[in-house]
Order: sequence, then C-alpha cells, then structure tokens
Amino acid sequence: MKFEGSICLVLLLVYASITLGTKDPEQGQSPYVFEDKHFITGMQTPHGRIRFLEKFTDRSKLLRGIENYRISTLEADPQTFTVPSHWDSDAVFFVTNGWGTISLIKHGRRESFNLRQGDIVRVEAGTTTYLINRDNKQKFVFAKILRPVNNPGQFEPFYVGGGDNPDSVYSALSNEILEAAFNTRRERLERVFGKQKQGVIIKASEEQIRALAPEEEEEEEEEEEGSREKLINIYKQHPIYSNQYGQLYHVDSSQYKKLQDLDVSVSLANITQGGMTTLYYNSKSTMIAIVVGGEGYFEMARPDLSRSSQELEDRPTGPSYKKVSSRLRRATVIVAPAGYPFILAASRNQNLQVLAFKVNAYKNQRVPLIGRRSVVSHLERQAKELAFGISAREVDEVFGKQQEEFFFKGPQQQHQGFSVE
Amino acid sequence: MKFEGSICLVLLLVYASITLGTKDPEQGQSPYVFEDKHFITGMQTPHGRIRFLEKFTDRSKLLRGIENYRISTLEADPQTFTVPSHWDSDAVFFVTNGWGTISLIKHGRRESFNLRQGDIVRVEAGTTTYLINRDNKQKFVFAKILRPVNNPGQFEPFYVGGGDNPDSVYSALSNEILEAAFNTRRERLERVFGKQKQGVIIKASEEQIRALAPEEEEEEEEEEEGSREKLINIYKQHPIYSNQYGQLYHVDSSQYKKLQDLDVSVSLANITQGGMTTLYYNSKSTMIAIVVGGEGYFEMARPDLSRSSQELEDRPTGPSYKKVSSRLRRATVIVAPAGYPFILAASRNQNLQVLAFKVNAYKNQRVPLIGRRSVVSHLERQAKELAFGISAREVDEVFGKQQEEFFFKGPQQQHQGFSVE
Amino acid sequence: MKFEGSICLVLLLVYASITLGTKDPEQGQSPYVFEDKHFITGMQTPHGRIRFLEKFTDRSKLLRGIENYRISTLEADPQTFTVPSHWDSDAVFFVTNGWGTISLIKHGRRESFNLRQGDIVRVEAGTTTYLINRDNKQKFVFAKILRPVNNPGQFEPFYVGGGDNPDSVYSALSNEILEAAFNTRRERLERVFGKQKQGVIIKASEEQIRALAPEEEEEEEEEEEGSREKLINIYKQHPIYSNQYGQLYHVDSSQYKKLQDLDVSVSLANITQGGMTTLYYNSKSTMIAIVVGGEGYFEMARPDLSRSSQELEDRPTGPSYKKVSSRLRRATVIVAPAGYPFILAASRNQNLQVLAFKVNAYKNQRVPLIGRRSVVSHLERQAKELAFGISAREVDEVFGKQQEEFFFKGPQQQHQGFSVE
Repeated sequence: MKFEGSICLVLLLVYASITLGTKDPEQGQSPYVFEDKHFITGMQTPHGRIRFLEKFTDRSKLLRGIENYRISTLEADPQTFTVPSHWDSDAVFFVTNGWGTISLIKHGRRESFNLRQGDIVRVEAGTTTYLINRDNKQKFVFAKILRPVNNPGQFEPFYVGGGDNPDSVYSALSNEILEAAFNTRRERLERVFGKQKQGVIIKASEEQIRALAPEEEEEEEEEEEGSREKLINIYKQHPIYSNQYGQLYHVDSSQYKKLQDLDVSVSLANITQGGMTTLYYNSKSTMIAIVVGGEGYFEMARPDLSRSSQELEDRPTGPSYKKVSSRLRRATVIVAPAGYPFILAASRNQNLQVLAFKVNAYKNQRVPLIGRRSVVSHLERQAKELAFGISAREVDEVFGKQQEEFFFKGPQQQHQGFSVE
Repeated sequence: MKFEGSICLVLLLVYASITLGTKDPEQGQSPYVFEDKHFITGMQTPHGRIRFLEKFTDRSKLLRGIENYRISTLEADPQTFTVPSHWDSDAVFFVTNGWGTISLIKHGRRESFNLRQGDIVRVEAGTTTYLINRDNKQKFVFAKILRPVNNPGQFEPFYVGGGDNPDSVYSALSNEILEAAFNTRRERLERVFGKQKQGVIIKASEEQIRALAPEEEEEEEEEEEGSREKLINIYKQHPIYSNQYGQLYHVDSSQYKKLQDLDVSVSLANITQGGMTTLYYNSKSTMIAIVVGGEGYFEMARPDLSRSSQELEDRPTGPSYKKVSSRLRRATVIVAPAGYPFILAASRNQNLQVLAFKVNAYKNQRVPLIGRRSVVSHLERQAKELAFGISAREVDEVFGKQQEEFFFKGPQQQHQGFSVE
Repeated sequence: MKFEGSICLVLLLVYASITLGTKDPEQGQSPYVFEDKHFITGMQTPHGRIRFLEKFTDRSKLLRGIENYRISTLEADPQTFTVPSHWDSDAVFFVTNGWGTISLIKHGRRESFNLRQGDIVRVEAGTTTYLINRDNKQKFVFAKILRPVNNPGQFEPFYVGGGDNPDSVYSALSNEILEAAFNTRRERLERVFGKQKQGVIIKASEEQIRALAPEEEEEEEEEEEGSREKLINIYKQHPIYSNQYGQLYHVDSSQYKKLQDLDVSVSLANITQGGMTTLYYNSKSTMIAIVVGGEGYFEMARPDLSRSSQELEDRPTGPSYKKVSSRLRRATVIVAPAGYPFILAASRNQNLQVLAFKVNAYKNQRVPLIGRRSVVSHLERQAKELAFGISAREVDEVFGKQQEEFFFKGPQQQHQGFSVE
C-alpha cells in the first residue's frame, strides 16, 4: 500500500516537473544572460580547449527563435596545432586574441592564410579546417557562431586524423571495408590510425610551425580584393559611431559577401571606461553578444510576460516591462531579441569589448531611444504632447539634454544600487 | 488509501488531458473556423481597442504550418491618436473602414501619409508607428497580419511614450542608467514618464489632429510611383474576376514589392447578395481570411484524418473527405490550407466582403473545380471516362451547365438544411 | 486497493513509454536505415499501389532536419490509368522502371508527355496529375520525394474524379452548394459522382491508352530546350565519376532549373558487382537514398551520442564514432546526414542502383576521405605528421595505395564478418 502511494507521489512530482519544464517562469534565472559556467567543455588537452555555450532552447522556450545557433570558443596555447576536422554546421569565426594560420580544405583544394585579432572568417559546413598558433607567447583565441545543418542546435565534429584521441572517423568502419577502400592490409591501417593519442590541440615543433606558414604570406596584400573574399578584419572598417566614450565597428554581407546566406552580421563595441551606449534596440535581428574584454554592465527592458499577448486573458491596460540586468565579465553572453531596448556600460576602470553576432541580419536597423537622433526626436510637437501627456516643451527639455548620438558618458560614482567598478 | 486512489485518479485525468491535448480529435471544434469570441482584447481604452486572434497552434497542431502568423484588428474612435509603438513582428496593415493618418519612423526619419479604406501598408518589424483617426464620425479600423521575428507566433508591442498606461519601455530601466543616458536628474524624468495614463488610444483635439496632417497631402499623387512604394489600394487594382455575382481584387509582390520578403499576398472578395464563389483551392498558399463586411457561408472539403496518410495503418481504399462549414459574420476568420477546396457564399440579404491574407504566396494559383475553366474541363475525353467511370458525355453534361468562371449564382431559398439568410 | 495499485502501475508504464518515446536510445534500431516493411500502403487496387515511407521524425528526433520530406513509391500495372489528383506537397518524381505518360494540369492548361526510366519531373504542389502505363508488359514504377506545403511531414491527396473509391472531394460538400455551383439538380450529380468504385489505379482499354498519348509525341525532341523545362533524364547526363566499378549520375538545379526552389538534387549511383564507393560525406546536404535495383551493403560512421556535444557533461577527450551498417535490397532507404562519412558497396553477384535525393542541395560538395583526391591528400607534410602522430611517409604509403578517385574494387570473398553476396 505504502508502495503504491509512493509510486503515485513520484508520478506527481514527475508530472509537476514535466509541466514546469514546459513553461518559462517569470521568476528565476533570466533567459537572456549566460555566464562562464554555462559553457560546456567539448574538448580539452594540456594545450587548449574548445567550449560550447549550452543550447539556447535548453535554457528557455523564449529563445526558440535562435534555436539553430550555437556559440563556441576555442583557445589554443602558443605553438600548437589544432587537428583537422569538419563540422556539420556553418560557422563564422572571429579572432579575439593572438594570431596564427587557418587552413581550409574544400572544393578539392587547400587554402591557408594568416589570421590576427579582429579577423572574421566564414567557414562553410563540411569544410576540413585546422589551425596553427604560430606565436610563442600568446594564446590564439576564437569566438564562433555555429548554425548546424542537420539538426536544429545540434552539431558534431568529425576528425579524420587521430586514432585513440581524438577518435578518427575511419575507426568506426569495418576492417573489410577499410582494407578494400584503402587497398591495404589491416595491419598497416592499424599502424596509421592508432598513434595519435594527444587530443585535438597538440604541441608543434618550431620547424613544423615554420613549415606550415601560408605559402604566399604577403600580409600587405590582405586588404586587396582577393584576400577580402577569404576574410575581413573588423578593425579596418570605418566605425559606425565613434566618440570619446566608445566605437562601434560593424561587418555585414555588404562588406563580406560570405555572410549573406547565413544572414548573420558581426559587430564589435569598444566602450571606454566610464562610458555607455544609448538605449537602443535592433529592429529585426536578435543580438547574441559575448564579452571579449573588460568589465561592465547590461540592462534591458523586456515585456512582462505575466501580462503578455500570449496569455489568453484580456489585458485592457496594455503591456508592461521588466528589467533584465547583469554584470558583464569576459565570456558573459547576452541575448537581446529584436525590439527589446538595452544598454551596455563599461566599468569605470576598464574598457569593455563586446562582440555581437546578429542573426536575421538583413535590413536590420539600430534604433536609438535616447540621444540626438532618438525616435522621440522624430515625433511632431503634437505627437509628443499626446504620447507623453505633457507639453512638447517639457518633452524636449528632457530629450534634448543628451547631445551625443550613440555612446554617452555613463553613470557616476555617487549613485547607489549600481556597481560597475 | 482513499487519498492514494484520488491522486491516481487525478493523475489519470491529467494524463488523459495531456494525451488528448496532443491529438487533433476528429470530433469537436473545427480547427479552420474562428469566431469573434476567439479574439483576445490586447488593449482597450474608452476610445478604441486592439485585438488578437488566438495563436493558431493553440487551436490545433494541424495549423503548425501557419504557427508564425497572427491576425490582429485595431479600432480607433473618431478624432483619436494611437500612441507610438514598435512591435517585434513584421506586419501588413489593411484599412477596412474609415480614414486617417499613419506615421512610420524608420531609418532615422519619419514618414506620414493618409490611409483610406482598401489601403495596404507593409510595416517592417521595429518600425515606430502611430495613427490618427482624422474623421469626426467614422471609426478607423484595421485588419493586420503579423509575422513575429523573435519567437514563432509570439509578439509584443513596445511603447516609448506613456507612463502608467501604457507603461513606457524607459520605466523598466534603473534610475542610474536613465539619469546618465538622459543626462538629466531623476525628478525631471519622473515628470515626463508619469503623466500619460489614458492608455494607447486617446482622444485628440481638433487642433492636434489638424496639425498632425501629413505635410504633403497631395492625394492626387498617391497613384504615382513614389506613393506606390509606401502603400497600395486594393480597390484601384483591376479585379481578377468580376461579374454580377462578385468581384475579386488581389495584390501581391508584383504590384506591391514590399510584400515580397514576407511572401504574403492580399485579396478581397466582394460577393453580391445571393452569390457564391466556385469551388476552388489555392495550389501553394494557406489562406487566412477575415470577414470584413456582410454575412454568408463557408464550406470546405478536408481529408478525413481518421483515414489519413499520417496513420501507420494501411488504407488500401484511399482517402475520404469531410465537410467543414460555418456561417460567416463580421470578424469570422477562416483558414483554408493549400489544396483544400472551398466555397464562399454571400447571404441573400447582404453583400459579403472577405479579406484574405495568403501565406506562402509565391507562385500560388487559384484552381477552380467547377465552372467554365475547371480542372475537369481540361481532361481528355478518355481521362474523364476513366476518372468518373461513366461516359464522357455524361461528365460534360454535368460540368458544362455552369458557364460562369469564378463567381456564380448561389443556393436558392427552397433548399433545406442550409441557411444563409 | 488492488485496483488503485494497478492504475498506478499502468500510469508508470505509460509514463515510461512517453519518456522513452522522446529520447533516441543509443541501442536499438538505427534511425538511418529503413526497410521495405517501413513503407505504409497508402492506396492499393488490383492493378497497383502507392506507398509512403513512415515519417522520419516518427523514427527518431535525430531526423528532425528532414522532418518536412517524405519518400513515396508508385507501382502501376501494364495498361493502367492512375486517376487525377492533386497533393498538398511539392514533389520530384523519378521513373525507376517502365514507361508511360504523365499529364499535369496547372496554370489553367494541360501538359502531357511521355516518361521513361531515369526521367525526373518536378511536380508543384496543387498540380492535378494523372498517369498512364502504356506498356502492355512492364510495370510503371516511380520513386518520389515529397515536401508538404501545409504541415511539416504531413500530406494528403485530393481526388476530383472518383465516387465511392476513391472518394471525390466534391462528395464532401452539401447538396445545396453543389446544386448551385454546378447549376444542376442533385439527381444528375449523384449519377456522376457515384460510379467510380475501382480505386485510384485502374485498368484502361487499349483504345483509351492509344487516345491518351501525348499530342505531339516527338520523342526525338525531348532533349531540346523546350522539353528540358518539363523534365530531364538522369542517364543523359555525363557521369560525374565513371570507371569499371561504377558510375555516378547527378542532376541539380543547374541542369534542371525547376529543382531550385525545392533545394533538392537527384543522383543515381550504379555500382558494378563487386565494386564500392569511396568513403565520403556530403558537405551540406542530407542524402535520402533508396535502392532501386540490385543488392549491396552500406556503412556509415556516426557520432557516438553518448559522448556528444549535446550532453551537458564535459567531454575532454573529444568525440568518438560508431558504425551504422545495413544490407541493401530493393526499397531499402538510407539517410546520410551532412558530414557523416559513408560507403555503398554492391554485392558480388549483382550491380547495385541507388537513387539519392539530397535536401539542402545548394553548394553541396561530395568530400572523399579515401582515394586519389582524399582530404588527407591535401594536407601538408607537417600537418599529416601532427594529425596522425607518425611520419608523413607512413601516412602517404597508406593513403597512396588507392589510385582510383570515387569507385573502387570492393571487399573480397575471403574476409569474414561481412557478407554482401
């Protein structure tokens, strides 16, 4: 009897957890902020590691719109080789630190070229890729956005070389097939596929690194048309906004055509210590941003879903909004859906660098809500009166004080309840 | 003991409801017809209201293909102002009644122009939009199709103005951030963001309305190329079909290019009292139609899913079909999936106006099954014999009686079991 | 009491089955291989049948990426007529055996033309289609890929002719509507829609078949531009790879433009008895292949999901791979996701013909892992050393033995554990 009761209670709990799992509770962790601890270590060796951010929809159903995008980072120690692999996902690589060489094998040929900080490379699904950190002091660090081609949000790497660690794809096949395909006896095959046991990021000798330099390393020409097609450097773009409080760099398919079919753009905000962005939203894109340097603070207005249009009850008084906020540290990831207004602020001691991948990038606009060209500045006098219920003069006095357009002086020390130092 | 039993029974019921919730029972409400009561009032003030049709997939999994589309209506009283907002959805607005002004702020500038009945305007996601009903007698009424950009089928409005009602997006942010961004002290900000308490559709004075007229109100020029880009009027198109029983107007991306990336087209069927359409289907599009005037009747043939290709059991005898039928009144919404044949009939006392948004519009064809150019009229004599199992002459006699092409004389009074009066 | 306990046990089992149903167990049936028994008979008459492969996502969540594609076959006996129908799915038809006539009614006109083995025809959703097997000995057999337009993975046929079997779509509507629309009395309608009772594939007389020949049967001209637009024959393409062990034929949107918006390509591998393909993967496409002749064997390397990137636990040692293998017989269907390396081998007694539909076809590459132009052949000497942990000479010795590029001599008799005879 007791047993039967226990089963029922277990079932009740199980049922409760299923039910709760399908809702996004208002309380609890925001679906829009991820910390370092939300990264999974995919592969680790003594000389580097590859990490993935958890799947967005594992966090919240509110992120269903970006279900098919994943964020990954790669860190390779000085003088290392990252062994060749292909992935079942399209990707955009961004070099956040260091420099080295990337090799891409596709369309039956190999292309090798040097990468440095700020470089963006589109890597198509199925391209065999390997990396060399050619520096003898700095790490070679990448942030990537992946768009899996087989299953939404799921991707897998495939290693050709290797043996025990990483496993080689050849090792999964039967001996009869391998012997016939290679036209070689089993014993010889075992010699080739059993030796690599050091993992996916391994130490290389100076001679190997020197020999693996790109054949035509004419760095001066990287700005030429030919090189442009392979990669683009975000810091070589004219900043969209620039003043004493920060600079915004941006690359989309109009500068780098290979981003077009992914419909992804890349931005980098460099916010000076003590500075902040305006309050703004992206008109169409969801921004997935990762802090690549410094410290700061993030605030966003999001709809209060307890009164949202998704509820079946009528809500005659209209929507209300709640605050999402977070400290920003290296590797913090924030998601700002289209239409959601947000700010980014640097701490008072360090500049803040935020790398942003935007999905659904085509025809996206940044729309500022404060500052010289805010939405309110475009309203007619009477529209201001009607929208705010006060005189247009009063609206203008408040909206006219901020003369900058995008980057502003941030909050000052004396204010409480807000700590970005 | 009793208690344990009760838990089990509760669980059993809960389980049963989960299970049923995941199936589309044959019996019960059709997933293809929505009544006035299936609209949710999103926002209501003494001077107007905004309503949304429930989410299609909340009704039935059979509507998964249109999950990411929503239908909304807006009604604004004479001489009112609908406060500025942006939405996280692309939209197509159709003016069903009245006239007034729309203002759109995007790409850093404002565009204001007059709208009248029959006008179609594509509004991109993130565009700040506001409306003025400039008439002093008529309501200004819109039907809209929305395609959310963040989450399938979910959207939210964002109000910049306002304060208590509607809430303003500014109000969600912390004081420290707002003070720094506005470069203004908290007290002044509170004065600006606390005054509007009347909701999203408010009364405007005659002076305000006069002042909010579009700057270049050259109505004559609206048919020019420049104006065409902003909007299009469906009644100015040459009707596709027109006879004494009805007219069909149609706008797609070949007339109004802004519809192209949404892949939506707009039609308006004006069916004379006592008239009906042919039995027809859309080859590729799902039609989401809303009755904007008059009364009538709808019938559609749908596959009998209890014998459908989705079942794992074999069905050697092939598919069968069932009837979906409904009276049509103002605000009735009907969904006709691609390939499903249907008719629309006006009542005998009133003309019927049906506005149809078609999704997946590219290369769609209307295919008539009865009338002068029906599918059967294209069969060879022998194909008719084989398809119907009778002589081709008999087929022709039945299919040849209806000489009209698209709009027909409807059912007559004497028939029973059918009431469209 | 006993009763209550039983309910609980039932619930527990039910719950367990729900839970298991949502996971893809490592053990058990591979999601990548389907046998003849996984086809559902949709329609059967004494003279033919239409079958559908079960929905991919009913098999496994791992096939979510191809949820909206279905595989179907049609077999019509000599001298038969397949009655007119339209489907709510786009389709590509491939003639695997026999010859006959297809008629397509769309855009208000009929197009009839002859088809023979190897012909590919794109049939748009909503097109009324019928077939005549004009041969008096051979079956007329099709393999099709369908992409439903209404609901992911669900489709329905709609029959216009017919009566009791197949049901006609007209029969679902009310008499009042039909009488008005046809402008004809009920009694006459009943005579037309009640006679066909023989099902969807029926015997035709020799006179009927002769009369249903295409009007301009100028077979010589089928290779002309005009005919090309209607259909293409895969055997008339120059093979991409061809040697004594096999030939690979391929058609994509660059040869047959109508495949473009479906983003599907079609290949046919004809592998000589005792031959095999290289180990290769598709860079972007998922291949859905069906054996249309002969016997053979399939092997594929797939990620070991128990250590996959989808798991929340860290996996410092990187991925590993498992073998998927299957005998191939007529009607075996295999799915090879993008990036997954696989081989196809013919038995030693029969040639093997495998028809492959590839979805997500745009810019796909076949990437060989063994043979003259394998990925490894493109690595620099040092990259080979680092990737395999042995000398580049040893790598070259193993990878250099196979001098063919795509089709190889297959496994020999003496090997054990592998039987393809």
